Amino acid sequence: MVARTDELGRDYNKLLQKSKETILLMSINGLAEWDMETKMPPKAVNLRSQQLGMLSQLEHKMSTDPEIGELLDRILRSTNYEDLSQVEKRNVHLVKKRYDEMTKLPEELVVSTAKQAAIAVNVWKAAKAAKDYSIFKPQLEKLVELKSKAAEILMTVKGTATPYDALVDYYEPSTSSETISKLFDELRSGLIPIIKKCVTAPTRPDESLLSRTIPFDTQQKISDSLAKVVGYDIESPSAGGRIDETEHPFTNGYYDDVRITTHYYENNFASSLFSVLHEAGHAMYEQNLRRDWMFQPVGNGCSSGFHESQSRFVENIFGRSPEFWSYYLPELRRLTGSILSGVGLNDFVRAVNVVRPSKIRVDADEVTYCLHVIIRFNIERDLFAGKISVADLPEVWNEKYMKYLDVKVENDSEGLMQDTHWGLGYFGYFPTYALGNIYDGQILATLKKQMPDWSERFARGDFLSIRQWLGENVHSYGDLYDPMDLMKKITGEEIAVKPFLDYLNDKYSNLYGY
Amino acid sequence: MVARTDELGRDYNKLLQKSKETILLMSINGLAEWDMETKMPPKAVNLRSQQLGMLSQLEHKMSTDPEIGELLDRILRSTNYEDLSQVEKRNVHLVKKRYDEMTKLPEELVVSTAKQAAIAVNVWKAAKAAKDYSIFKPQLEKLVELKSKAAEILMTVKGTATPYDALVDYYEPSTSSETISKLFDELRSGLIPIIKKCVTAPTRPDESLLSRTIPFDTQQKISDSLAKVVGYDIESPSAGGRIDETEHPFTNGYYDDVRITTHYYENNFASSLFSVLHEAGHAMYEQNLRRDWMFQPVGNGCSSGFHESQSRFVENIFGRSPEFWSYYLPELRRLTGSILSGVGLNDFVRAVNVVRPSKIRVDADEVTYCLHVIIRFNIERDLFAGKISVADLPEVWNEKYMKYLDVKVENDSEGLMQDTHWGLGYFGYFPTYALGNIYDGQILATLKKQMPDWSERFARGDFLSIRQWLGENVHSYGDLYDPMDLMKKITGEEIAVKPFLDYLNDKYSNLYGY
Repeated sequence: MVARTDELGRDYNKLLQKSKETILLMSINGLAEWDMETKMPPKAVNLRSQQLGMLSQLEHKMSTDPEIGELLDRILRSTNYEDLSQVEKRNVHLVKKRYDEMTKLPEELVVSTAKQAAIAVNVWKAAKAAKDYSIFKPQLEKLVELKSKAAEILMTVKGTATPYDALVDYYEPSTSSETISKLFDELRSGLIPIIKKCVTAPTRPDESLLSRTIPFDTQQKISDSLAKVVGYDIESPSAGGRIDETEHPFTNGYYDDVRITTHYYENNFASSLFSVLHEAGHAMYEQNLRRDWMFQPVGNGCSSGFHESQSRFVENIFGRSPEFWSYYLPELRRLTGSILSGVGLNDFVRAVNVVRPSKIRVDADEVTYCLHVIIRFNIERDLFAGKISVADLPEVWNEKYMKYLDVKVENDSEGLMQDTHWGLGYFGYFPTYALGNIYDGQILATLKKQMPDWSERFARGDFLSIRQWLGENVHSYGDLYDPMDLMKKITGEEIAVKPFLDYLNDKYSNLYGY
Repeated sequence: MVARTDELGRDYNKLLQKSKETILLMSINGLAEWDMETKMPPKAVNLRSQQLGMLSQLEHKMSTDPEIGELLDRILRSTNYEDLSQVEKRNVHLVKKRYDEMTKLPEELVVSTAKQAAIAVNVWKAAKAAKDYSIFKPQLEKLVELKSKAAEILMTVKGTATPYDALVDYYEPSTSSETISKLFDELRSGLIPIIKKCVTAPTRPDESLLSRTIPFDTQQKISDSLAKVVGYDIESPSAGGRIDETEHPFTNGYYDDVRITTHYYENNFASSLFSVLHEAGHAMYEQNLRRDWMFQPVGNGCSSGFHESQSRFVENIFGRSPEFWSYYLPELRRLTGSILSGVGLNDFVRAVNVVRPSKIRVDADEVTYCLHVIIRFNIERDLFAGKISVADLPEVWNEKYMKYLDVKVENDSEGLMQDTHWGLGYFGYFPTYALGNIYDGQILATLKKQMPDWSERFARGDFLSIRQWLGENVHSYGDLYDPMDLMKKITGEEIAVKPFLDYLNDKYSNLYGY
């Protein structure tokens, strides 16, 4: 709260109070969604959808309250506006951005888009099961049409270069598709030779050890132990987290209540192991936000890409590093009894870092992963620019998978229908996955400079000091800057692909001996 | 929804739509409370209290929306009002009642009462731990003063005979303290001789078998098995319930999502066993409400007393009957392995039906329980009539415990400070516990008439047909009638204590051979 008692101060405090109500309501919405995926009795599906519908109606009503518009007007026109601090101005900016987005779209368009997305995602499920894109296509066409209309309007509101940029802006603010295209072209050019070298290396990792059977309760103990290592507290009397099991792992929460989930497969323990690290990385970001910014717009993560950078930092950069495993493999052996006895460190590290071009994004390794994302980004960009149509998707998709990853897609269910995002209308989200990796490269390079003994710390399992460094250098900025500006703030440099490629080259040339 | 499209029809539908929003919001509030007790990470306490505060603010705002007042006015003054069906009129009545209650109390009084209750309940905890009523007394005095003010106002709004009646009316609508006093005097006179006969019976039940150690996971299996017996579905693909563990057992939910909790004590398996039956009885009521009344005011249980009648029916009348145990003891023996082998049916039934006057209400048996409640009711009634003061409570309390139950209260923590209700400001709630038992007597008498083979059904563990009978004869009326009217509807008779006393006399004369 601003201490000033002039009109600007009163208006600002009122605005923040209204914003706090929305934030609280969204946190309740988050709880209801978490419960739906974890604990809810199956019969409650319809009741829950009515509850969620009501919460989102309320949230919309609160966020578009005309009083917010009036407060924003008065604040921005105030002769004392420049007296506001940087944080206060940012809060005003974030409220205004959201208010504009939500008030400038015609309600009819919002409602019909939500309805069409509900239809499309259900038809997507059926079409995927039937391996028949022709079932999904007409619904996707309608959804893309509605999203295009919204994008056209938002382009004007936000002043972006293209309609698609306005969609990306939801997830990665002020990040143009032109910038992303350049970054991704460079990234692709750098990744392809690394993949080639790994794939043609004389000895391939032996992955079979990862399919050894590990009972569920042992895997749960591994989760708890990993949570402790990375500082995700689920046990102490002041714990702010918990781990449950769901079909698809996710993180949900706010500040003091941030919950993660995982999925246990008896014959694939690495799946839950790395998903716990991944989700704990997301949770770490939320939990490390500045306390005095709680309930303020600025008290949020910066962007989807930055969130992904934190989850992948914990999962890949720390969690798949040879150093970490030199520390943790003995503990994993202890927890699993005789199951992993006789497995050598080098063999284990190679197994969890196998590079293998594949058709499914969510199963992809650290090196090939970004190519999956780049394919989706290029398609979305061209789709919303009218260069390709929804009807062209299978051909374009399969061609790119062949060209970038050298894999042949046999049917559309393992092709363009593999992800749920498009059925839900989440266009513009995909690029943030790869941006997160690019950010990681630069964040790691900065960490190495500022903490020269980082690798000894990894090898001691001392993630807590890394967590603290990330807290000070990344998390504590919250949503004070747009992502490209935050990157500069953290690293002192412009966004660049090279550090991430350098990291991969270093790591995989060692692992594969190329 | 009313099909009519005239003004009355439109107004009525609008009113129901607004009411539905409140009901949905309260169901979300219920979920947040359930989560707080079961799954919430401890660090989230403050965040959750802000979330709950916000939900209750929103609910208050919705319930007191001036548009509701206007709709009610127009509906009640409509020349076509008499065209509304009984259900529609009841819905209007229930919305109006709530609207009046919430709008007629000055906001300042509501806020200061809520604040004082928050203080009082925390001070109560500390005072109870310190066994020192003098710590609690000043806070309780303030709370009683505020509640008295509210009761005075509500007395006028509701047209009750006394201020205390207006408080009781929240939980047991249209049930006067004069009626309750008469019923309770008769009940007390009937109970005391039964207790005397049980206590002085030549052989006392051997309770020691109830303290045999049963591991937690076995007790969980017992819970699951009992849930199945009474038709509380937690397992099937369309299950609408679940069982979790909390410090104090409770039921929370609405229609398709009704969750119960229990508490497991290793050396007191009967505690969780009967709490599961009790809570499953509450859940049964919610789950058996008419589907077409979902989201309508009438789609709720009738009163706290009726809710308690259903929980105690399952726990005591069915769950502690010799017939049920002739069916279930073999299953319990099977589930517990060798732990209960050698325990005879008669010994077991006597053990779970031991009658022993005690100081603590929540530990009381089926026969002495109502005396605990009657003491509290008499005290509350006299307190709000100004016949006794908060300062008199210890003396009055201890005297009554000696007189009614022949037990000597050693300190106020096991005396008037044992329950949380008064610290929370829940005056008027206590009598509903005993009313539930009185209702049960009449419901059971009616069941026996209409289902002459009831005892064979108990002995076959066929609770499902009893559940169906209760559904048709009790639950399906929802909140269509006030409790005394509902009793008449179900039984064809006025409220009466005799059937409950007859039930107890029958059962305990057999068990204790008096």
